[in-house]
Amino acid sequence: MRISLDAMGGDHAPRSAVEGALEAIAVEPSLQIVLVGDESAIGSYLPTPHPSNIEILHTTEKIATDEEPVKAVRRKKDSSLVKAVELARQEEVEAVISAGNTGALMTAGLLVTGRMKGIERPALAAMIPKIKGGVTLVLDVGANMDAKPQHLVQYAIMGSLYVEKVLGIKQPRVGLLNVGTEEAKGNELAKSTFPLLKESPVNFIGNVEARDLLEDACDVLVCEGFSGNILLKNTEGTALAIFSQLKRELTSTFMNKLAAAILKPSLKRFANRMDYAEYGGAPMLGLKRPVFKAHGSSDAKAFKNALLAAARFCKSDVNQLILKELQIDHSGKGEKE
Amino acid sequence: MRISLDAMGGDHAPRSAVEGALEAIAVEPSLQIVLVGDESAIGSYLPTPHPSNIEILHTTEKIATDEEPVKAVRRKKDSSLVKAVELARQEEVEAVISAGNTGALMTAGLLVTGRMKGIERPALAAMIPKIKGGVTLVLDVGANMDAKPQHLVQYAIMGSLYVEKVLGIKQPRVGLLNVGTEEAKGNELAKSTFPLLKESPVNFIGNVEARDLLEDACDVLVCEGFSGNILLKNTEGTALAIFSQLKRELTSTFMNKLAAAILKPSLKRFANRMDYAEYGGAPMLGLKRPVFKAHGSSDAKAFKNALLAAARFCKSDVNQLILKELQIDHSGKGEKE
Repeated sequence: MRISLDAMGGDHAPRSAVEGALEAIAVEPSLQIVLVGDESAIGSYLPTPHPSNIEILHTTEKIATDEEPVKAVRRKKDSSLVKAVELARQEEVEAVISAGNTGALMTAGLLVTGRMKGIERPALAAMIPKIKGGVTLVLDVGANMDAKPQHLVQYAIMGSLYVEKVLGIKQPRVGLLNVGTEEAKGNELAKSTFPLLKESPVNFIGNVEARDLLEDACDVLVCEGFSGNILLKNTEGTALAIFSQLKRELTSTFMNKLAAAILKPSLKRFANRMDYAEYGGAPMLGLKRPVFKAHGSSDAKAFKNALLAAARFCKSDVNQLILKELQIDHSGKGEKE
Repeated sequence: MRISLDAMGGDHAPRSAVEGALEAIAVEPSLQIVLVGDESAIGSYLPTPHPSNIEILHTTEKIATDEEPVKAVRRKKDSSLVKAVELARQEEVEAVISAGNTGALMTAGLLVTGRMKGIERPALAAMIPKIKGGVTLVLDVGANMDAKPQHLVQYAIMGSLYVEKVLGIKQPRVGLLNVGTEEAKGNELAKSTFPLLKESPVNFIGNVEARDLLEDACDVLVCEGFSGNILLKNTEGTALAIFSQLKRELTSTFMNKLAAAILKPSLKRFANRMDYAEYGGAPMLGLKRPVFKAHGSSDAKAFKNALLAAARFCKSDVNQLILKELQIDHSGKGEKE
């Protein structure tokens, strides 16, 4: 199983990517990883001679996080990000991982790799940690700003298979993001989507409110990209604001610092449960070959987990399973054939 | 200035409402408050004889928080909520406050009081506390599920005047909720609204991302009701989940409890800053007479602050100012005449 990794993306490039690759092959020796980026920079973090299941593809350009995605992808043909995706288009690798510019990665995924047959809109999924452990897969969080009910049904099917095969949750509960739990609630899109989800092959549990996101309300949460992005960023922003302020309070006096030292192990355990790095990258689903967006601040562990998630995706042939689900006629019969 | 208060709404009815009314007239003796609800229940929390600026309007019914709003408003004509709003329709009071069923209050506001001339869609506004103090007025948080660009411009004008006159913030900064800060970002609605807000009379500062909500990004945040509701409930839910888990961690061992005791004053100060009760009710703007939704768990302080906010609203004649702004031709000239 061959996977390309954009070694130049992320805040700690290329070090974290390279170290993550080494950790991943130690756990999963069947992995073959192509590190894409500056050869000498990458080489400096590899042992000599480097392991046979690590390759380097040398590139000369890098897309910055603030570059305009479409322009960057079109112009920087020799960037590590575009080259990593290009390998998927050439069927040289089965999946791609990057911690670089999210917009550029989505653009390259769409333009270079292309959509799967039958998928109208690929979706970007985010894994949002639950307060007591585990994650909710939320999709779409920004690949498409306006969506139709049938797109949300496709998101539900793709998300459901992902969570089952990659995260190992049987019969994942699928919720529809809405402003209330009753069927008649919501905007036109939500109201039209509800009956379609009821008839779809996923384990649809109904509407889920934004207030219950961290409380294990469901395993897969479906929404259009605008609300999904608002939800994701608001959760991150609220948690970050509270934890930052808490830190200020905990260090504001000598006594507080003492108390904070006592609490450290508990708080650390809590923070670890909320740590994105445990859960690998955010998959962009619906592409011919899956693309995984790792967090910009990914460390070696985050890269390792993203690589292992991508490996599970390929091993279970999730794309093939999605195709199979889509080919079944779900037009109102409410059951598989 | 006469204001009606649904004394039977909220978790601590009628006690908190009555106590809040007594606290409000102590601060603002020009207030005349009509407590609407069960006369004997209300009376038991009032001193004898009760103050001359507190009246009671006896009603026999109560709308529960889980009742279907439209049905409840149509059927329960003698409910405290409907009667309180009815007083506004009869021009007996200048504003209405209730901590009851939000949907029923919005419905009664619309059906009984009616829209202001020139306002296509009234909006429900929420006050979300900022991490370092103060609030952001977010609207719409659920009065209308689908909106058009011109509705969002009206929300901006109403919200801006509210924040200036009731919260006392000069030239409030108005932001548009979006998935990125660049002008071209967002769904069709956001992209069409951006240029209209630029030409509107409000102090528009551009797009604001959901991650910056708690960080003093703006004073008024404009969005359609679906995203606004998601944003509001996600912020509440995330904060609540984190604080609950924190509480579990702080009390998990004897040593942790000791440390928590030391930290108590700091944490309490922080929690107070995030306390909705400081900021009064959430106004429903665009109605002939304003309706304020107080939080379901409002205590006396929350009711007092809602009453004082309503009083400031009426004193500054915010509705008249809104009408004046709407009559000015804002069609593309970018300046007031």
